[in-house]
Amino acid sequence: MDYSKLNGLIPAVIQDAESSEVLMVGFMNEEALARTRRTGYATFFSRTRNALWTKGETSGNRLAVREILVDCDEDTVLLKVTRLGDGNVCHTGERTCFFRSLEPQRPPRSHGEV
Amino acid sequence: MDYSKLNGLIPAVIQDAESSEVLMVGFMNEEALARTRRTGYATFFSRTRNALWTKGETSGNRLAVREILVDCDEDTVLLKVTRLGDGNVCHTGERTCFFRSLEPQRPPRSHGEV
Repeated sequence: MDYSKLNGLIPAVIQDAESSEVLMVGFMNEEALARTRRTGYATFFSRTRNALWTKGETSGNRLAVREILVDCDEDTVLLKVTRLGDGNVCHTGERTCFFRSLEPQRPPRSHGEV
Repeated sequence: MDYSKLNGLIPAVIQDAESSEVLMVGFMNEEALARTRRTGYATFFSRTRNALWTKGETSGNRLAVREILVDCDEDTVLLKVTRLGDGNVCHTGERTCFFRSLEPQRPPRSHGEV
């Protein structure tokens, strides 16, 4: 993995393995990814706390990792997970952190247009 | 949106609106997001080229934006898109940039475990 582009971090996209819903995006350093692989639970690096945190370590809403995919540039990972606990991933109590939409886009002029 | 955490950038996760497959992760600055919303095509900020680039502007494989979702912290966006052109999003010719898996995880000990 290439940790050089973001000062030691890579984005980690968390996707529900069953529904394919994108649940959250966190950041990992090398140690967080190693711990995730070793334990089977998603562990991130908190930029605000400057420390590792295993998602759900207090709430019980851990994320059990089913598969880890790496992108072509090796600077991002995609984790397919099973939600444990009450299954609500967001700290607001929502199932996903992506629960708000920006106002609708105007549609592109044509599907075939390049 | 909060662009302060990554020196003016936010991660943008690109998800196929039909299949729900995660296709790539790019970065946007405020101008890239504005152009994405104005044109309806995903536009990123290239960290290596230090410039905006509209995905597919040369290949024709543009990403037509169907919906933009914002996360709870307003520091990440999720774009649901329709793949145009030949539909291959990755520069390697693969449909998605996430085409490689890390070796299988050992499964967590129990689903109910917290």
